[in-house]
Amino acid sequence: MRFSSDQLVSFCAALFRAADVPARHAETTARRLVEADQRGRTGHGLIRAAPYLQRLRAGGIDPRAEPAVRRETPVSAQVDGANGLGQVAMTLATEVAVAKAAANGVAVVGTVNSNHAGAAGLYPAMVAGHGLVGLYLAVANANGMPPWGGTTPLLGPNPLAIAIPTEWGPPFVLDIATTAASHGTIKVARQAGTPLPPGWVVDADGQPITDPDRADDGFLVPIGGYKGSGLTIAIGLLAGVLGGAAFAHEVLDHRLDPRTPTNTGQLLIAFRADLFRPMGDVLAELTRHLELLRSSGSRDGSPLRLPGDEAARQVAESARAGVDVPTAVLDALNTEAERAGIPPLGKDEK
Amino acid sequence: MRFSSDQLVSFCAALFRAADVPARHAETTARRLVEADQRGRTGHGLIRAAPYLQRLRAGGIDPRAEPAVRRETPVSAQVDGANGLGQVAMTLATEVAVAKAAANGVAVVGTVNSNHAGAAGLYPAMVAGHGLVGLYLAVANANGMPPWGGTTPLLGPNPLAIAIPTEWGPPFVLDIATTAASHGTIKVARQAGTPLPPGWVVDADGQPITDPDRADDGFLVPIGGYKGSGLTIAIGLLAGVLGGAAFAHEVLDHRLDPRTPTNTGQLLIAFRADLFRPMGDVLAELTRHLELLRSSGSRDGSPLRLPGDEAARQVAESARAGVDVPTAVLDALNTEAERAGIPPLGKDEK
Repeated sequence: MRFSSDQLVSFCAALFRAADVPARHAETTARRLVEADQRGRTGHGLIRAAPYLQRLRAGGIDPRAEPAVRRETPVSAQVDGANGLGQVAMTLATEVAVAKAAANGVAVVGTVNSNHAGAAGLYPAMVAGHGLVGLYLAVANANGMPPWGGTTPLLGPNPLAIAIPTEWGPPFVLDIATTAASHGTIKVARQAGTPLPPGWVVDADGQPITDPDRADDGFLVPIGGYKGSGLTIAIGLLAGVLGGAAFAHEVLDHRLDPRTPTNTGQLLIAFRADLFRPMGDVLAELTRHLELLRSSGSRDGSPLRLPGDEAARQVAESARAGVDVPTAVLDALNTEAERAGIPPLGKDEK
Repeated sequence: MRFSSDQLVSFCAALFRAADVPARHAETTARRLVEADQRGRTGHGLIRAAPYLQRLRAGGIDPRAEPAVRRETPVSAQVDGANGLGQVAMTLATEVAVAKAAANGVAVVGTVNSNHAGAAGLYPAMVAGHGLVGLYLAVANANGMPPWGGTTPLLGPNPLAIAIPTEWGPPFVLDIATTAASHGTIKVARQAGTPLPPGWVVDADGQPITDPDRADDGFLVPIGGYKGSGLTIAIGLLAGVLGGAAFAHEVLDHRLDPRTPTNTGQLLIAFRADLFRPMGDVLAELTRHLELLRSSGSRDGSPLRLPGDEAARQVAESARAGVDVPTAVLDALNTEAERAGIPPLGKDEK
């Protein structure tokens, strides 16, 4: 079923308001969730609204929290999320990073006491919209992978996202986890009943687990072996430990415990794309290089898709045809609406 | 054969001086090469001295070049390498980044008209020695991988290195290429005559090439498929295109052409580890987390090795027993010494 993004944002915001979240924070969170769906990152879109609402009701997230800048310099800031919704903390952190980097060239902004903030690419993409480069690192909200060679799953599929502005066309937006597959990707396979490709999940002896129902018995596999493992640790130290947020044994599995604060940490680095040459020149050159890569030849003859291209295509498609909401997600939202006494999103809405 | 690091630095510096490199640049380059060997990064150590000397003589690198800061703000700088030795440009860039980040919190320093600068981990490790976090990105000096789904090898095994300071023990130093294997790793397999593991090199149809002598007919494989491919592009845009250095079709294979300047670009981001909490606290917490990971259990019961641990062990071993120089590398250096009229490094030196 397809709906306009504005319709989805107001519906979802009403659900959060009904859970005692102030109107502007409800709107911010709803908008970030819908943006994820618009970009095709459905695992971090409206599918998350119901779990967030359960967590708000159970006390794991404080609905009335007011995130604030706790410590700052002209080129850095720490945002204390006050255990409110992660999208609210990260949206504030992004605004602060953009303002500081635009004014002073560079900014490093971290969060502490934050929560799951949805699609990693959203925040650096907002940064790139201002002619800035954005690098985003976050500590994932569930572990499932040992350090390389290890036996205790102290690491999670920590996300890394990098956005780079362009003169025209979509910005470059890389949005990846440091594991071959994330918890969400495996969940999709489990729901579909399709076997897992070897290389996604292994057992304690390093042998592949392909039965999706047995995935939770195994370990996630890092990209590039020790390389992805090391990258995951680096992200955890930078996004978590630097600011005093959770990492490794301190990470709470937010799927299993709805009551305890996660103390999630995120880190956003932003800097002007024109630090080294005039903005017009650098944006034109970035676009020219991406165009050359797109047209450099593919196995099936079509233009290559670079990171960010598919998201931009889906955003355009969503604007034209509406945002697609799977039936299962719609049902979960309408169950929440019924509980809150809010009119459901109907089948004749668009 | 083992030699003291000072002995190797003075011998190697004399070779560069004989190729018309000023004494302090010869010393800097020699020291960076020996540091790579001390850390066990032998592919980027003294083995590179002979190719650098050939390139200096052929005109591909300007021995008399004087790198300088071309454009700067309190939190950023561009170092113009003037087509001198890459180690000289990157050492200057690192010094500038350390000074700016220590004084102002954060710094982004890029190079243009630089050259191959050796082991990626060296520069962020120098940054971490000052209580700063260092992130280093560089454009590799030879391509060999298409963008994901593509057919034209426009990308190289671009390195990424991240160093994070600690209270005690070795700093965390991650030093990886975005491909499963680098050109250097494959070269080692070719010299040893051992087959390549599947997943290192593929042919145009995506089938593994395991014969090391056929590796140059194939493509390097990115870590994590489209993830490593996207990361490689991000590094190329940030370390290359932002500052006007070469990327993609502009990259010159420095193994094949000793005469044409490479216009290599590198990017170093440095920021204070105490942006968010006092230095004592953050360094202690970083150490504590790394120690917990090391002792979290391994398949063979020994402590886990984290990124940087093996380099630190080898540095200590080199200090005790001398730096190991393989016979082939020693022979190449002594051939250069003979040509320059410099006494060779003898077999009875240590």
